[in-house]
Amino acid sequence: MLWFVGLGISGTQSIPIEVVKIIQEADFVYLEAFTSPISKQHEDEIKNMVNGSFKIAKRWLVEDGQEILKRAKNSTVVLLSYGDPYIATTHIELRTRAKLEKIETKTIHSASAITSMIGEAGLQFYKIGRMMTIMNEKKSTMTPYSTIFKNLTEGLHSVILLEYNQDKNYFLDPKNAISNLLDIEREYKKDVLTNDTFAIVASRIGFETQKIISGKFSNLLKIDFGEPPHSIIITGKLHFTESDAINVLTECLDKPSDNSSKIKNISVQMIEKYVPMVRKALEEIRPLYNDSKEFQEVFENAELYINDAENFLKQGKNETAILSIGYADGLVDALRIAKGIDPKM
Amino acid sequence: MLWFVGLGISGTQSIPIEVVKIIQEADFVYLEAFTSPISKQHEDEIKNMVNGSFKIAKRWLVEDGQEILKRAKNSTVVLLSYGDPYIATTHIELRTRAKLEKIETKTIHSASAITSMIGEAGLQFYKIGRMMTIMNEKKSTMTPYSTIFKNLTEGLHSVILLEYNQDKNYFLDPKNAISNLLDIEREYKKDVLTNDTFAIVASRIGFETQKIISGKFSNLLKIDFGEPPHSIIITGKLHFTESDAINVLTECLDKPSDNSSKIKNISVQMIEKYVPMVRKALEEIRPLYNDSKEFQEVFENAELYINDAENFLKQGKNETAILSIGYADGLVDALRIAKGIDPKM
Repeated sequence: MLWFVGLGISGTQSIPIEVVKIIQEADFVYLEAFTSPISKQHEDEIKNMVNGSFKIAKRWLVEDGQEILKRAKNSTVVLLSYGDPYIATTHIELRTRAKLEKIETKTIHSASAITSMIGEAGLQFYKIGRMMTIMNEKKSTMTPYSTIFKNLTEGLHSVILLEYNQDKNYFLDPKNAISNLLDIEREYKKDVLTNDTFAIVASRIGFETQKIISGKFSNLLKIDFGEPPHSIIITGKLHFTESDAINVLTECLDKPSDNSSKIKNISVQMIEKYVPMVRKALEEIRPLYNDSKEFQEVFENAELYINDAENFLKQGKNETAILSIGYADGLVDALRIAKGIDPKM
Repeated sequence: MLWFVGLGISGTQSIPIEVVKIIQEADFVYLEAFTSPISKQHEDEIKNMVNGSFKIAKRWLVEDGQEILKRAKNSTVVLLSYGDPYIATTHIELRTRAKLEKIETKTIHSASAITSMIGEAGLQFYKIGRMMTIMNEKKSTMTPYSTIFKNLTEGLHSVILLEYNQDKNYFLDPKNAISNLLDIEREYKKDVLTNDTFAIVASRIGFETQKIISGKFSNLLKIDFGEPPHSIIITGKLHFTESDAINVLTECLDKPSDNSSKIKNISVQMIEKYVPMVRKALEEIRPLYNDSKEFQEVFENAELYINDAENFLKQGKNETAILSIGYADGLVDALRIAKGIDPKM
């Protein structure tokens, strides 16, 4: 029998009696602390509950899984982890393998730091976009940067976990993560993030020393966030109840602002640029074709498609809007090129 | 003092001792059961813990909040809710108001059904897209349909909650939600969902009678899912460990399949349609302009932009790809129109 037990986020006193019993009655108890740091005190308190054998489980031991699965065949094994057990993919994989080997598995779900921090920061669950992790290595920050961009174009909040390496006792500081993101911005210039980007740093969620600080990147970069774990949330479009909540529930250095309003969808940017440009290009060339009846229909079509582009964009049909303005531009430029005038693409 | 206490998902035995104490010592205990149904037995067990006054809190009472806040000013009030307290926006709003009225608030986080079901179904947290709720009213299903589409184009999983109305004791059946989605598909024909769409129905997560059934829509529509609560997950791109987990951890009616592979990004669809079409249109018209030197550059440009469209798409620059093929099409069609040949838009 293999138990996957989540310890929640608030130390030993938040462990239910039924779970204490499970730990006490187990033959082998493994404490997994590579997905998030667990304090020495918490570790000692758990060790004191155990009557069987106790072991700290390193990442390789859980990933390899053979020792745990072998023992679970004939005895009761408990794998303890911070938060909810299945936030970590490794635990789901181990459970799958156990089931395939006909080992019975049971689960104790518990409060997860991710779920908790969203509520503590006053944000709505329906507005959370894809989650991500930022690592110290700068190059790997490109993917989170793109994910934040995609989330923001939809007005969604980005929950960002930070690299933790148990063996090296290393936890990426929120300031370094923000700096990495700003470096990527400087390189790719998509105007996703600036010093004015509003973000929330959630530190030690569930601990006595929990602290949630919000503000612009420029001000967050001056803060000492203290002991890990930390996470960052880059907010998207804020409902007024969310702004109010951030103001009241977090240590708010700056007025919450909408990061998504600055983000223009690429389609919107294109239509805003090309519609006036193609209109002007059309007016310039028209007089040169006054005597060519066969080309009048081309001009009429170009005008129609320019208007279509604007209307499709309003209807949210972005791709069709771009196709239309590209087409109108092509119609006009064919006639410009034929007269030896520079095309306007 | 106002406590926001999450009861978790597994009944009274999963409540930690510290929480039992908080409930016992409170002057007023409100049990909120409008965000998710709580069984009569669970309700009775909680009532038995209470030494102060106990009350079921209807939605209006929590939304109005005045009674709770007034009492919390001079006595200890506990608001109990299913799962984690801040999944419900109403609770965050009440907490914000309490803070503004200088009422101290404290929180007990707990296992949430949303977090738990994702892990129980074997899915990775990093691949969860925007969450949504499906209501019975068919017209309102358009928004979830679009959200599922957006999630699938990014390969993400869609977690779908189902309408619950405490006053009417109404819970939307998963089968009705699936039917509503298929009706919207029939109307909008975006090829997002079909009878072959693979989905996971998670019923009564955390209860003794928990059941997770996965399969194609066509087979799920034949199942009696029993008592609520239920949720649906429409899976996106599946990592092989996710497919394995679904196979082993859920009651799997059909082999897990990738719903996102059928979803073609609109940009990809456009390029696949227009590139061969514009190439053909160009070849048809070219001989008619053999004697017109001034138009040769138009043909050369059209060829270049057709190739550009394909290359931009490969580089993930979808908008630029569409702009390019639209432009090439316009160049070619200007010359077709001038010769009285039907344009190819």
